Amino acid sequence: MARRSIEVEGLHHSGNPIPAASRVGSLVTTGGVYGMDPVTGVVAPDAREQVRLIFLQLGRVLAEAGAGFDDVAKLTFYVRTSELRPFINEFWLQYFPDAASRPARHTLVYDHLPGAILVQCEAIAMVSDEA
Amino acid sequence: MARRSIEVEGLHHSGNPIPAASRVGSLVTTGGVYGMDPVTGVVAPDAREQVRLIFLQLGRVLAEAGAGFDDVAKLTFYVRTSELRPFINEFWLQYFPDAASRPARHTLVYDHLPGAILVQCEAIAMVSDEA
Amino acid sequence: MARRSIEVEGLHHSGNPIPAASRVGSLVTTGGVYGMDPVTGVVAPDAREQVRLIFLQLGRVLAEAGAGFDDVAKLTFYVRTSELRPFINEFWLQYFPDAASRPARHTLVYDHLPGAILVQCEAIAMVSDEA
Repeated sequence: MARRSIEVEGLHHSGNPIPAASRVGSLVTTGGVYGMDPVTGVVAPDAREQVRLIFLQLGRVLAEAGAGFDDVAKLTFYVRTSELRPFINEFWLQYFPDAASRPARHTLVYDHLPGAILVQCEAIAMVSDEA
Repeated sequence: MARRSIEVEGLHHSGNPIPAASRVGSLVTTGGVYGMDPVTGVVAPDAREQVRLIFLQLGRVLAEAGAGFDDVAKLTFYVRTSELRPFINEFWLQYFPDAASRPARHTLVYDHLPGAILVQCEAIAMVSDEA
Repeated sequence: MARRSIEVEGLHHSGNPIPAASRVGSLVTTGGVYGMDPVTGVVAPDAREQVRLIFLQLGRVLAEAGAGFDDVAKLTFYVRTSELRPFINEFWLQYFPDAASRPARHTLVYDHLPGAILVQCEAIAMVSDEA
């Protein structure tokens, strides 16, 4: 099926030859999206700001794929500690205000986040039209 | 694409503002489904009973999403120890008796299951009709 | 939706009653694909050879599902150590030479890979036609 690499400025993957996401037909899947400031290219120092930037970056990735937050089926968060959950909830409620139309979510504590990364997210989305 | 939060009575998410699953078009994805008794709201004390309840709860979640076990593409199990696998296999064979029509499965040992939870499952399913 | 177990010779699952992958409609999802030599049934001793065999086995699994590498939406790698990443990149570039058409990828360090397995992969793919 027709596949398209999805890349956005200011979301690097440490030199690995991988896009931020991929669109195959109506399916959009991302790799790990993390709290890198798209302008400075620096990972934010605190967890709340990382979560804020994850949603910002995710929106940019989705848009580049022809999708939006309304198309997100599931978000999986990898966190250094489950104490970050309130920050995720805060922005989650901003981006998904309608309780009747929310994605699934799974949060996993993960001990091997690289460098300064405290939280990472991956998304799966479905869009109406074909690529 | 049209998205619908999927929630069932007696499967809580510790106060987080997330549904048990989400349906976007024909795609159904769940968060972590675990062995909570839907009547008492208590997590079962032993692993086999937790697995039994996971399949029970998964069936309720799928039904609420307009799906069934026949639509399940993949189950991912997160277990405290791989010694739980026989229990998963026991109920797996009950729910997926036809060897020619089974979902994919991946079982991951996960050291951070919260509280009394010994095993957790997430599902991805595809239904024929649109939401 | 119509579902089909996908199995190939020479990729065992330690006696568990699970197929290598499953196809439900146009969606193909695999379980853990690892570096087992399809002829000898032995897991390769070194990491680079395991990665080579993973891509070989993945191609066989996809073909059996009526799919190919062009249909892959995402690969998730579970590695014993992130030092294996160069081997993944080497074969990744062989199988996905077109930078404009690559799957998403997520690599997770995982401390519980069984036996001699140093790296494992799971795939999600979408094919054009129905099962």
